[in-house]
Parts: sequence; structure tokens; C-alpha cells
Amino acid sequence: MVRVYVEHPLSAGQTVPLTEAQAHYLFGVMRLAVGDTVALFNGQDGAWDAAVAQVGKRGGDLVVQAQTQAQGAPPDLWLLFAPVKKARTDFIVEKAVEMGAARIAPVMTDYTNAERVRVDKMAAHVREAAEQCGATWLPAVAEPARLDRTLAGWDASRRLMWCDESRAGMPARVTGDPGPWAILIGPEGGFSQAERARLSALPFAHPVSLGPRILRADTAAVAAMTLWQTALGDWR
Amino acid sequence: MVRVYVEHPLSAGQTVPLTEAQAHYLFGVMRLAVGDTVALFNGQDGAWDAAVAQVGKRGGDLVVQAQTQAQGAPPDLWLLFAPVKKARTDFIVEKAVEMGAARIAPVMTDYTNAERVRVDKMAAHVREAAEQCGATWLPAVAEPARLDRTLAGWDASRRLMWCDESRAGMPARVTGDPGPWAILIGPEGGFSQAERARLSALPFAHPVSLGPRILRADTAAVAAMTLWQTALGDWR
Repeated sequence: MVRVYVEHPLSAGQTVPLTEAQAHYLFGVMRLAVGDTVALFNGQDGAWDAAVAQVGKRGGDLVVQAQTQAQGAPPDLWLLFAPVKKARTDFIVEKAVEMGAARIAPVMTDYTNAERVRVDKMAAHVREAAEQCGATWLPAVAEPARLDRTLAGWDASRRLMWCDESRAGMPARVTGDPGPWAILIGPEGGFSQAERARLSALPFAHPVSLGPRILRADTAAVAAMTLWQTALGDWR
Repeated sequence: MVRVYVEHPLSAGQTVPLTEAQAHYLFGVMRLAVGDTVALFNGQDGAWDAAVAQVGKRGGDLVVQAQTQAQGAPPDLWLLFAPVKKARTDFIVEKAVEMGAARIAPVMTDYTNAERVRVDKMAAHVREAAEQCGATWLPAVAEPARLDRTLAGWDASRRLMWCDESRAGMPARVTGDPGPWAILIGPEGGFSQAERARLSALPFAHPVSLGPRILRADTAAVAAMTLWQTALGDWR
């Protein structure tokens, strides 16, 4: 079934007007007609079935029927990553949603070499990924920030799992208590010596190996979130 | 350092002639000059440093110097996956190499809806990914085959971890002995009822959950290989 994020309250009997883009997608692309059912979520009210009540070229109406999912929430896990080339940044954002991040934050490291980061595009990828993966929430997308400033202002009660290429060959494992965590994925050139020294000295930071091969940033993001989710998150 | 796969024996003092494509990459794109060092591997002799000895527009020569990596091998893990849209199939192939698969096999399932599978393109992606991730081997790429025939001819000593969306919410875990294994990733529409029944009845098949959300095939491939590598493979 088609699943769509809307910015509108959802409750039984509610009429939800569609934007032009939503109408194009539902009626032009997916070819839905009056009476067909769509799943809706808005990030607050869970997911609901809704029936197509009116079809237009530039809009239309859905009428909300029954709730199908209670409002959920991801674990309290942030994904911090050094932006890479555009297509891979898009993938990292998509993967972060599927893998259950609560917050996605681009961080600029010493070796980050990225074009301008488009937070609006990242938010659009978040919506699409949430529609596809069945989440009822949208992770927040943070404005890009420098890693050194991010670490300077860090709340030490949030542990930080950082993926350390120099530990290749050590067991890939994260341990600790569930609760606030963040995962930090470096750029394709790795962390600088200064960054590595700083991260190693932080009491809340846990270095983790991701196996003996060099992973691309998007692969590393999925692998790191898998480690965390199976040890401490909602995959247990 | 630039790392290149070549189809040429590698030993100290050996001259390695370059193809036109390799010369274009090394001299045109990477701007290497006589005396610069390149890392070479051929899938058999480990990895070696080599010096640029001659630069040409359509070719050139490298001279092999010292071995830097012994020949390695991945765990005996196959990745079977239902091909998806082209870009995602390319990603799955790349991820399979980085994550340490020994063999990559496209399988056609009841709900597989893919364009023609280009095994030659898959092999090119395998080479690129091996160059990038530091592997000294190239996983084999199998011709596409139907899932039912693949299972009919299966060697029961190779266990099969299949990713079962209907187990969402069960712990994500694989257990067993190391040794021959394969991972099977279904298409984005999931497995059919018939396929699910058949897989459930196979004594060598182990169903595994990949968490409570619906993952895209490329995300599922990385997550499943992470589970396997940390439990049974070379990430331990």
C-alpha cells in the first residue's frame, strides 16, 4: 500500500487536503482513484488508513478512516557523519532513517571534502525513507556543524561510538547501557591525527572497529547502526 | 595511495604493462608521473607496490617493487540477492565486496522485477570495490539463476541465512558454526508465500530478522552481512 507523510492532524473522519505534489504522486504516478486506500502518518498521530474522496489535477482530498499503527519512536540514537559526495550523502540519510536514527547531523571534519550540504534535500530524503520503511516518525536533521565545536558542546551523558579505521582487525562490538548514544562516521579519508587524539581522550567516546576492510561511508553507517541496534537498540 | 587490480603476475622486478583504460586513470585522472608509486593486486599474489616506469597516452609500464600484503581470502560466505533497480544492484555488489563476500549470486525470485542483469558490469563493480576496500581477492560473480533451481541444487553443508520480513521485532541474531554459509536477501516486495514455505522447510536454512523496519535491499545486504561477520566471520 502507498504510504504518505502529510503535515496535517490525523483522526477518524478528518479530511486531509493534498498538495499539488502529493496529488501528482497519488493520482498521476500511482494511479489511485476515488475509494482507494492510502496509509498516512504525520510524525505525531501514528499511521492511519485514508480513502481517496476527491481526485484533482492539482489537489484532492483524503478522508481518514482507522488507525493502523500507534505513534512510535526510534531509540535515542543520533547519527553524525562527515558529508561525502551528493549521492552517497543521500544514501546515508536514507539508511539512517531505515536503521532507526532519531537525529541525523552532518559534521565537518578536518578531511571532509563535501559540496554544500543541502539540509532541505536531506529532510526530503528523510520523508521518503520514512514513507518506505514504515516509521511513524521523522528523524530531525541538524544544520552542518564543525566536529570540534560539536564535541566542545557535547552532553557527556550521551555516549559516542566512533568508527576507528586504525582498529581494523579488532572485534567489531559495542557495549554499554542503552540510553542516549550517537554514532560518528568519519570521511572517506578517515579522521586526522588531531581528531583521533581528541576522540580517544573523551570519556564518553567508545572507539569501535568495523572489520578488516576499508568501508565507504555509507556502508560504514549501516554496519555501525547494525552493531548498535543489535547490542543496545530496537533490534534486540 | 592509488590501488589497481591488474591481470598480470606480480613479483619483485616484474614489468606490468598497462591497458589504455589503466593508463588513462593513472596518468590522466590521478596525474601520476614516472617514479610515483601505485599498489597492485591480481587476486592471487597479494598486493605489491609498483613504480611508474613509463608514461604513455595509451599505455605505460609499472615495475613491481615490494610486497605489502600477503594474499588474503574472505570467509566462505556467499551473498545471494534478488536484483533490484540498476543503481541499487550496483550498490549491493559494491557492499558485498567491502563486507567480505566470497561469491555474489543474483537470484530470480517470484517477486523479482529487475531489468536484465549485466554480469560484466557487476564484475567491473567488484574490481572497483576491491581496489577501494583493500581486498586482495575478487569475489566470484555468478550468472543469474532462479531461486527454486538454486535451492533444488543446494549443497546442504552450506547453511543459508535468509532475511525474513515476517519476523520483524524478533531479535536480529545468527548463530551456528563458522564454515560455508550463504545470505539470501529477497526483493523489495519480499518473498512469496510459496518461497517462504519452502525456505522454512529447508534444514540448512536459518530465518533471521533485520529489525522492526522494512529495509531496502541494499541496506538489508549490509545489515545481514554485519550480523554474520560479527557472529561467525572475520569481524570477530
